[in-house]
Amino acid sequence: MAAFAVLLTDFGFADPYVGQMKGAFALHAPEARVLDLCHQVEPFNILQAAFFLESSRKHFPEGTVFVAVVDPGVGGDRRIVLLEKHRQFFLAPDNGLLTLVMQHGGGSRVRDVTPAWRREASATFHGRDIFAPLAAKLLTGAPPERLGEEVNPHTLVRLPGLEPVHTDAVVDAMVLHVDRFGNCLLNLECEAYANMILKARDPVLATPVEMPLQPAFTYEKLEPGQVGVLKGSQGYLELAMNKESAASVLGLAPGATVRLRLERHG
Amino acid sequence: MAAFAVLLTDFGFADPYVGQMKGAFALHAPEARVLDLCHQVEPFNILQAAFFLESSRKHFPEGTVFVAVVDPGVGGDRRIVLLEKHRQFFLAPDNGLLTLVMQHGGGSRVRDVTPAWRREASATFHGRDIFAPLAAKLLTGAPPERLGEEVNPHTLVRLPGLEPVHTDAVVDAMVLHVDRFGNCLLNLECEAYANMILKARDPVLATPVEMPLQPAFTYEKLEPGQVGVLKGSQGYLELAMNKESAASVLGLAPGATVRLRLERHG
Amino acid sequence: MAAFAVLLTDFGFADPYVGQMKGAFALHAPEARVLDLCHQVEPFNILQAAFFLESSRKHFPEGTVFVAVVDPGVGGDRRIVLLEKHRQFFLAPDNGLLTLVMQHGGGSRVRDVTPAWRREASATFHGRDIFAPLAAKLLTGAPPERLGEEVNPHTLVRLPGLEPVHTDAVVDAMVLHVDRFGNCLLNLECEAYANMILKARDPVLATPVEMPLQPAFTYEKLEPGQVGVLKGSQGYLELAMNKESAASVLGLAPGATVRLRLERHG
Repeated sequence: MAAFAVLLTDFGFADPYVGQMKGAFALHAPEARVLDLCHQVEPFNILQAAFFLESSRKHFPEGTVFVAVVDPGVGGDRRIVLLEKHRQFFLAPDNGLLTLVMQHGGGSRVRDVTPAWRREASATFHGRDIFAPLAAKLLTGAPPERLGEEVNPHTLVRLPGLEPVHTDAVVDAMVLHVDRFGNCLLNLECEAYANMILKARDPVLATPVEMPLQPAFTYEKLEPGQVGVLKGSQGYLELAMNKESAASVLGLAPGATVRLRLERHG
Repeated sequence: MAAFAVLLTDFGFADPYVGQMKGAFALHAPEARVLDLCHQVEPFNILQAAFFLESSRKHFPEGTVFVAVVDPGVGGDRRIVLLEKHRQFFLAPDNGLLTLVMQHGGGSRVRDVTPAWRREASATFHGRDIFAPLAAKLLTGAPPERLGEEVNPHTLVRLPGLEPVHTDAVVDAMVLHVDRFGNCLLNLECEAYANMILKARDPVLATPVEMPLQPAFTYEKLEPGQVGVLKGSQGYLELAMNKESAASVLGLAPGATVRLRLERHG
Repeated sequence: MAAFAVLLTDFGFADPYVGQMKGAFALHAPEARVLDLCHQVEPFNILQAAFFLESSRKHFPEGTVFVAVVDPGVGGDRRIVLLEKHRQFFLAPDNGLLTLVMQHGGGSRVRDVTPAWRREASATFHGRDIFAPLAAKLLTGAPPERLGEEVNPHTLVRLPGLEPVHTDAVVDAMVLHVDRFGNCLLNLECEAYANMILKARDPVLATPVEMPLQPAFTYEKLEPGQVGVLKGSQGYLELAMNKESAASVLGLAPGATVRLRLERHG
C-alpha cells in the first residue's frame, strides 16, 4: 500500500486528541502511513486550514488522503464530504474548508460521505470516530463510490471574500496567515500577482502603516528595519523582514486587511 | 510485528528529549512503530497523565505497549512497573500514573521491571535510557516474564481523592483536564453519571459560579454565553461552551473542584 | 532500507512547514522512515541547534541522516554541506550548525552539496525543496560522492566563543539551553568538567546570583529552594532544581554567562 494519510486539524498537542486519531488508524488500517501536516490551526479557523490545505497539497504524492478536521459544527447537521481532485483525496466537514482547493482548475468529484448510522461514534470527536475510519477505508482499498453518493461540487460551502480587489494602482489584500517567523502571507497568489507587485516601480504599503516595500528574492537581502514583499514558499506573496517579525512591526494578524499602492514601471 | 509503542510524557517539544526516545527505539527495535499519544502533559502532573492513559487506551489495538513517563522521582528509588491489562501493556514509574487504568475492572498483572543494573543509563532521563529499551524488548518479542517478577497489584501507588462525592441533590467533582478549546473534563465518568446529571430537571453549577447548566449533545447546539454539560469524547462529562472557553468563563483550571446541584425529573 | 532521516529545525508546529518536509520525503523516498528530533529550536538560534545535534547524535543508529535546517541565510550564498562522521550523515547549511559535532574527535569528511541548479526550488524554503530531496537521495542509496565535491573540513563556518574559560578556582560558562523544566544546560561537558566541579568542596554560583550549589545525582534529592549542579542526560552539566525552574529562580536564559567558584577538596 503506497498511499499516505495526511492530517490537518486544530486539535493542538496539549490533549490526547491527535494521538487518539493515530490510534484509530492503528485499529482500522494498521499498515497505513500517517503524516501530520499541522495540528495547530487556530481553534475553529476554517480559513487558515483551507489555506494550509491548498498550499500544501502539491508537496504530497498522488493518492494521498488528506484528513482535514477543523469542525466547529461537529455532531450537527453539516455534511462530511470527500473531494477527489489532482489525483488526491480530501476528506473534510462541508464548512468551507475546501474553498481554496476548489478555487483552482482541474476536474473534481465530490461525495457526501456523512455516515447514515454511527452508533459507536461520539458526538464531539468525529476526527477520531468518523474521519479517521473513513480515511482508513480508502487506504485499505475501499473504492470511493462505496463511501457515499456523488453530489454537485457547486453545493459545497465556500468561504466568501477571499478574492483580493485591485485596480491598476491599488491592491486590497488580506493576511491569510502569520507564520512562526512573523511573515505575513497574503491572499495574493504568486502566479497572478507576483509580476504586478514585484515589478512595480515603487510598491508601497498604504495601510495599516504607510511604508515603502522592498521587492526581494530572499529574506537575507533585506536591510534591518526594511519590510520586503516576496514570493513565499507557499505560493503566495508575503510581507517579511530579515530575522524580525513583520507581523509585530506592522501590527498584522490573520484576517487583517492591507492596502498596497503600486506605481508601475515605464 | 504488529504492535505499536505509544508514548505519553511531560517532555514537551522544545527539547530533543522526545526525539531521543525515538532514537532509542530506532536503536533497539528499528522495525517498531512508535506513536505519540501526548507529550505536553503539564510538567510533573501525574494525574493528567493518568487520565490521558485511561481515556485513550481503548482507542489503540490489543498488544499496544504504552510508555508513560511523567516521572519527577527519576533516578530515585521509585519502581518501574509493567502492567498487563485489557490485552495491552502499560510501562510507567510507580507513582500513581496507573491509578485510573487500575480503577476499572478486568484482570491485571503487574511486574516490577526496575533494572537491577544500569551502568549506561543516565540518572535523569530514564524515558530514553530505560523505558524505551524495555518497551523495545517487548516489541521485539521478549516475554514479559523475562523483564521482571510479578508483584501484587495492590502494592501499586494510587492517587487519592479521585472519586467524586455525591448525594441525591449534589455532586462534588474535580476538573481532570482543560483542553485546547477550554472544555473542562470532570472526574465524572459518563457510564456512571451521565444519566444522573443529563436527565436532571434543572442541573445547576453551584460553585465556583452559580449558573444554570444546559444538558447538550453537541457543542454547536449551545447558545452564546450558555454553559453546557455533555458526554465528552473521552468518556467523561464536560462543562463546555460553543466556540468559547468554559474554563476562562468559569475560572476553572485542572484540579479545581466544582459543585453541581441537581433536581431530578419526576 | 534500514536508515532513518532525523529532522531538526526551527520551523515550529504552527505552520505547515514540517508537514511539507515530510511530504517531500513521501515524494522522493516513500519508504524512508523520518523521525523528528526537534522543531522548536528558537528561530534562527544556530547555537541551540548545534547543541541539540551534538547531544543527540549518539542516540541514533549508524547510517542515520540528520537534516538540520536553522537557516537564516536561506537562498543566499551560504553553502549546503554534508558531513560524514561517526558513521552518520549530517546535512546542514554551512553557518556554524555543525560546530559542536565537529569539535569532537573522529574522522570526518565534508562535501559541498549546494545544488548548482535549482529551478524548482523556492528561494525561502530549502528545507522542503533542497535538504529533504538531498536526504532522500542518500536514503534511497545514492553514494555521497554523487552529491558533491569533498572540501576541507577546516573551511566549515564555526561558532566562536563556545569554550568555557577556567582557572583552578573559577569557571566561566555559558547557558547553551534552558529546557522545559527550567534546567540550565551549560557548555561544560561532563567528561571534561564533572570531576572538577562535582567533587569541589564547596562549589558556588558566583554570577548572576551568589548561591551555594549542591552537587547532585538526581533532581529528586534536592531540597526545596536548593539549586543543584549535576551530570545531565545530554552529556553536559546542568543547574537544576527539584520540580522548580532553576532558570526562573536564577534569571537565566540561553546565551547567558554564569561564573562558578570552586574550592577543591583537600
